[in-house]
Amino acid sequence: MAGGDEGVSLGEIVAHLGGRLVGDATLRIRQVATLEQAAEDRIAFFANAKYRKQLKSTRAGAVILAPTAAQDCARPHIVCDNPYAYFARVVRLLNPATTASAGIHPSAVVLSELPATVHVGALAFVDEDVLIGADASIGAGCMLGRGVRIGDDSLLYPRVTVYAGCIIGRNAILHSGAVVGADGFGMAREADGSWTKIPQIGRVVIGDDVEIGANTTIDRGALGDTVIENGVKIDNQVQIAHNVHVGAHTAMAGCVGVAGSTRIGKRCTFGGGAVVLGHLNIADDVNVSAFTLVSKSITQPGTYTGAMPIEPHRAWMKNAARLRHLEAMADRIRELEARLAQLEGGN
Amino acid sequence: MAGGDEGVSLGEIVAHLGGRLVGDATLRIRQVATLEQAAEDRIAFFANAKYRKQLKSTRAGAVILAPTAAQDCARPHIVCDNPYAYFARVVRLLNPATTASAGIHPSAVVLSELPATVHVGALAFVDEDVLIGADASIGAGCMLGRGVRIGDDSLLYPRVTVYAGCIIGRNAILHSGAVVGADGFGMAREADGSWTKIPQIGRVVIGDDVEIGANTTIDRGALGDTVIENGVKIDNQVQIAHNVHVGAHTAMAGCVGVAGSTRIGKRCTFGGGAVVLGHLNIADDVNVSAFTLVSKSITQPGTYTGAMPIEPHRAWMKNAARLRHLEAMADRIRELEARLAQLEGGN
Amino acid sequence: MAGGDEGVSLGEIVAHLGGRLVGDATLRIRQVATLEQAAEDRIAFFANAKYRKQLKSTRAGAVILAPTAAQDCARPHIVCDNPYAYFARVVRLLNPATTASAGIHPSAVVLSELPATVHVGALAFVDEDVLIGADASIGAGCMLGRGVRIGDDSLLYPRVTVYAGCIIGRNAILHSGAVVGADGFGMAREADGSWTKIPQIGRVVIGDDVEIGANTTIDRGALGDTVIENGVKIDNQVQIAHNVHVGAHTAMAGCVGVAGSTRIGKRCTFGGGAVVLGHLNIADDVNVSAFTLVSKSITQPGTYTGAMPIEPHRAWMKNAARLRHLEAMADRIRELEARLAQLEGGN
Repeated sequence: MAGGDEGVSLGEIVAHLGGRLVGDATLRIRQVATLEQAAEDRIAFFANAKYRKQLKSTRAGAVILAPTAAQDCARPHIVCDNPYAYFARVVRLLNPATTASAGIHPSAVVLSELPATVHVGALAFVDEDVLIGADASIGAGCMLGRGVRIGDDSLLYPRVTVYAGCIIGRNAILHSGAVVGADGFGMAREADGSWTKIPQIGRVVIGDDVEIGANTTIDRGALGDTVIENGVKIDNQVQIAHNVHVGAHTAMAGCVGVAGSTRIGKRCTFGGGAVVLGHLNIADDVNVSAFTLVSKSITQPGTYTGAMPIEPHRAWMKNAARLRHLEAMADRIRELEARLAQLEGGN
Repeated sequence: MAGGDEGVSLGEIVAHLGGRLVGDATLRIRQVATLEQAAEDRIAFFANAKYRKQLKSTRAGAVILAPTAAQDCARPHIVCDNPYAYFARVVRLLNPATTASAGIHPSAVVLSELPATVHVGALAFVDEDVLIGADASIGAGCMLGRGVRIGDDSLLYPRVTVYAGCIIGRNAILHSGAVVGADGFGMAREADGSWTKIPQIGRVVIGDDVEIGANTTIDRGALGDTVIENGVKIDNQVQIAHNVHVGAHTAMAGCVGVAGSTRIGKRCTFGGGAVVLGHLNIADDVNVSAFTLVSKSITQPGTYTGAMPIEPHRAWMKNAARLRHLEAMADRIRELEARLAQLEGGN
Repeated sequence: MAGGDEGVSLGEIVAHLGGRLVGDATLRIRQVATLEQAAEDRIAFFANAKYRKQLKSTRAGAVILAPTAAQDCARPHIVCDNPYAYFARVVRLLNPATTASAGIHPSAVVLSELPATVHVGALAFVDEDVLIGADASIGAGCMLGRGVRIGDDSLLYPRVTVYAGCIIGRNAILHSGAVVGADGFGMAREADGSWTKIPQIGRVVIGDDVEIGANTTIDRGALGDTVIENGVKIDNQVQIAHNVHVGAHTAMAGCVGVAGSTRIGKRCTFGGGAVVLGHLNIADDVNVSAFTLVSKSITQPGTYTGAMPIEPHRAWMKNAARLRHLEAMADRIRELEARLAQLEGGN
């Protein structure tokens, strides 16, 4: 069963994915859409109360929703516990991944023995002693260094680089321009101010079900390894320094940077552009807001923020000038309090 | 007519580009330069009052300037309305782009039919069903996925990646390492904290006359498309998330990040390192300062800023500590006002 | 002499690298490690007082340390002035770089004459008029434009791009995805809000002993050159704009951005995510903290900071709201002072 022109019926969807269908099981769904834009052959989802008005007016063929929202929906619907996750599965059902055909493109340079089910795209390079799992796909122009290991079913889009000795688990997705295993930024300063490079002899070890975004970089460890645990999701242009450890199911949005040797817990989230200093410990279930600097360890779950509010430039100029004098402002308040107390006492 | 050793005469310049020449039309100009560094065979421009002193002392063969500045210039000059834009055209006149010769390098892998005027560099890969316009140039090592469309006269420098189905207009310039069309960062969270990927089935659609910098990433839409309108200019290392819409002639400096589904108006500018949260609306003609977080929609044109001022570290330490206690400081001021009012009333 | 299974003896280490050995010169060391994790065939170092406890309990075969720490160490040790720099040399001694064998891979496309000692990896492209020094190594998939020059002993990891005309000195290391010489972001604004590109006719000129991280971008100059002096070390995902000048032995951590025409002194350091505006001058020996915006020139050596402190989200919400009213807060304090002075005078 697949999507495409003929679509799938609502009955087939619940047969595959569970949930309780209210409406005509034979209705055919051809694609997903938003509540606002869905036509009658589309399925939408409702998971955020601020779209309740659109739930009432939608023309979608069906809506995926939670039990509490069912009474507000006049259209056919599928009731389930987690509508957004259910929707994700419906998108996949209607848009099955196109898998590249097995085999090595004649223009690729492959110096290792690979399983027959592996795809290697045009102009890719696979060095010696590389192990690639069954059904993995190595995109055009990828470069895999000596001794790299890639797990079953992993998908590397074109132009990914993996340095020698690094390990990537099963069912990974790496996007174009990602670089795994470049040297960490380790140097000792000499007396004259120049730097002596410290060879980076560790690896990057990435677990299963990890996604790594376009142009993201993950450095190899200095002595030990840089570790990305199972289920971690990393967006584009993220920088992970040497010896960082990222716990399972943590997610990082675009442009995040994590400095060396920091240990991040499980199920954390980092908003876009957040920066984490080195040698810190971040507990499990911590949410760091976008554009926030994490400058000290965080021991308790919760949401943490440190961004400067935006203002019209002229107002910002005035307030920013005051920012430099907060200490003096506090002193003046203290003095006022003392003088006032004296005055009150004197009365 | 072209630059190079023989150069062009001032008369030829105004014949091509307009403006009013004051001085010897036969004087030959061989290259552009700054007011400060220009020799007698160079042409410079004056557009910023803070360089007025250099305008008076320059040895340039000629100066491009606005009518109001003409009286301060003893050297030959070209008077025009927009000296900097005029200068841009003179640079091009003296430094015509070198175009790669048409044809497909034998080491490239090209699976689509291309016009004879297209250049495809060494070791590039062009998948099936790709359409490339006349006189376009695809640099060495570029990777174009199935169904990609590139407009006439567009120039892709080496090692650009365009994912399947994405569309780029005419006269585009894409720099090395740019990735167009990687998956947006869309995932639904399961009850156990793990993430289920939402397949990203939209495209990236880029208009005409767009420039995209080195290692910049623009993600494909989740359902609909990510759209970059005509004339947008994007610097290096910028991240544009899924379903973002960037209005015509907006410019973004290096390291900017824009989160998903945000809609940016026309003719906006973003300073380096600015971050824009998702699902916002930014009006036309908005200027966001460097290193500023846009955390809410902006409805009025103007300049907006949110950066923390820099200070010597010791002063910053004190002021930053106070920052955490602004709320308490405000309470103390309020209390002082109340006590003082009582004292004044009591008198 | 090399590391590996047989290792090197403590006597051989001090014979090569200097320092004073206290302990058995025949003891064989097989690898480096941290004080905490080192087994008896490992050598560790002590350079930070906060690890003094570990110095006392370590089981390392030997410890590299400064004269003042020698009395706290019961294990064999090497006494030297700069333990961390000494350690860097020991790591190299035990982990000699593996050099690629000389020669051009048959799948590479090389249009220039190269010395016999140069290595060019698979699927690399070297355009015409390129000069590469002895013993340099050009990784798989690298793209070197016309007229590029690379100095002796330089190492380009896979998939580095160097645009036409750029120059890299001796003993450089460039990591994957680095782009040297893309166009600077130079445009003139037309009256209708559109942009006219200013052709970027300068180069990038990089000195000796420079390291450039993965996916870092360094733009070519607009008129003159972008210059990176000897010994500069740049981490991943850094953006250096056109006509920037970086002084010798300056180091930049990941995700730093430097805007156009800024001049940075020697021996400066920039923490991760710092952003420097354009047309500034930064003195020698300046340290900029992570995630700090440098918005004006810095004339004195020292450490400068401008990051917003992180807080639990709810506390931040309150304090950030107050931030917008600092000017008003200052006005209220001033008014309180005036009223109080009047009251005190009146008494």
